Amino acid sequence: MKADRSSRAVRILRYGEREGSRSDDQLAAEEPLELRVNGVPLTVMMRTPGHDRELVLGFLFGEGIIRNRHEVNALNTVANGEHPHLENVIDVQLAASAPGVDARWQRNFVSATSCGLCGVSTIEAIHRSAPPIANSELRVTPDVLYGLEARLRAEQAVFSRTGGLHACGLFTLEGDPVAVREDVGRHNAVDKVIGFAAEHELLPLERHILMVSGRTSFEIVQKALQARIPILAAISAPSSLARDLAQASNQTLIGFLRGRQLNVYAGRQRVD
Amino acid sequence: MKADRSSRAVRILRYGEREGSRSDDQLAAEEPLELRVNGVPLTVMMRTPGHDRELVLGFLFGEGIIRNRHEVNALNTVANGEHPHLENVIDVQLAASAPGVDARWQRNFVSATSCGLCGVSTIEAIHRSAPPIANSELRVTPDVLYGLEARLRAEQAVFSRTGGLHACGLFTLEGDPVAVREDVGRHNAVDKVIGFAAEHELLPLERHILMVSGRTSFEIVQKALQARIPILAAISAPSSLARDLAQASNQTLIGFLRGRQLNVYAGRQRVD
Repeated sequence: MKADRSSRAVRILRYGEREGSRSDDQLAAEEPLELRVNGVPLTVMMRTPGHDRELVLGFLFGEGIIRNRHEVNALNTVANGEHPHLENVIDVQLAASAPGVDARWQRNFVSATSCGLCGVSTIEAIHRSAPPIANSELRVTPDVLYGLEARLRAEQAVFSRTGGLHACGLFTLEGDPVAVREDVGRHNAVDKVIGFAAEHELLPLERHILMVSGRTSFEIVQKALQARIPILAAISAPSSLARDLAQASNQTLIGFLRGRQLNVYAGRQRVD
Repeated sequence: MKADRSSRAVRILRYGEREGSRSDDQLAAEEPLELRVNGVPLTVMMRTPGHDRELVLGFLFGEGIIRNRHEVNALNTVANGEHPHLENVIDVQLAASAPGVDARWQRNFVSATSCGLCGVSTIEAIHRSAPPIANSELRVTPDVLYGLEARLRAEQAVFSRTGGLHACGLFTLEGDPVAVREDVGRHNAVDKVIGFAAEHELLPLERHILMVSGRTSFEIVQKALQARIPILAAISAPSSLARDLAQASNQTLIGFLRGRQLNVYAGRQRVD
């Protein structure tokens, strides 16, 4: 069994109630991960160690480099100088059928069309590779939604020690947790959950709810859309473009989900 | 006078106390900004409109593309299709003396040395372009630090409407605000503040405190170090690598600054 590298103990100085006292504290771990594709370095991401395989699968899926896990022939930790235990370098060997690294640029490039660069053109660019959700028949009750916050917190092992991590959870329409992942990076937590789904061949996630611990940005709605998730909930506010993308994509977007309160920003037909 | 594009009114459905009621809500604005350098597209960033010139200057400084504002000959909004009012495309003409776009890769590339890829090698890579802070003589009192949270909130105009923005503030050692900026992206808020300092020729910020509204990541400590900021405070927790970089860089790092409580994670000699 591997050591848990998701948090680390440090000595700190506290001011306030315990004026100037020294004590121990736990910090959320952040370490670099170099991702190589077919032996060529692609990116270095800062992430919380743990579930790295899921992170890599979810990242590759989100970037359009793979469409499913069968387009990965091998995913291996690479010898890393004097730190073999750190496992901070991962190489992915792609199948010949994978769209590959070149597809990344085509997919994510927001071209300034004759209409110009704006929210609408950005959303249109996303819809070329990830069209709107077709199904509007699914329903979820407010009671199921109210329960998600507590269920997300219950699974946040590292947050409870450190207070320093974002969380993302995948839930069934009945509110049962499928996977909850944590990371110092909000997008990493989403990538880990979607990577989990790729690993277990649950994609497309057409009957699931995605829940995030913080705010909802455009990029998080985009990642949910790529995984075909119809319902997205968050503890805090969405941005204007997150709401516009959800609405244009026929996704249900919930914000300020706290206790028995919530706001519906898009796709209200699914809230029963 | 230009219209305020930092937030936008939307109609939402509320559940909870006001069961199923419709009402209006304000969302933090998020829009794409395409940055061109000498006419060549460099990146598209998602940001909250407002203070775009500062955002661009701070971004270019953080990426090592410029060292000061005199290395920018011109910074202009480019005609943007049918949306001239959106000002979502900016072109920067660099002076010949600017390090330029090529320097970006050398600066930010974390090379896996013979020691391997780890936190220490990442910090060493940063220190090659931004060495540790030399001065340890500055002092700040806990009382000044306790006051920063309220002063940051007081300047957060858009947050108070939307609850959806990160904030970053630059303060004097006496706790007086120099600039407070908000953005849907945490790094953008930091870039805007450092861009403000570049614009007003306040760099290097050797006698200032930087305060952020959320958590402290490695990248935020890195941006503060590049601007030579000795003291960094945050309302939430730092990551392990944020703390390691601050400690190795002789920066003072404060976390969980709430009311009259705070934790000192590094550089405790400056807290008097």
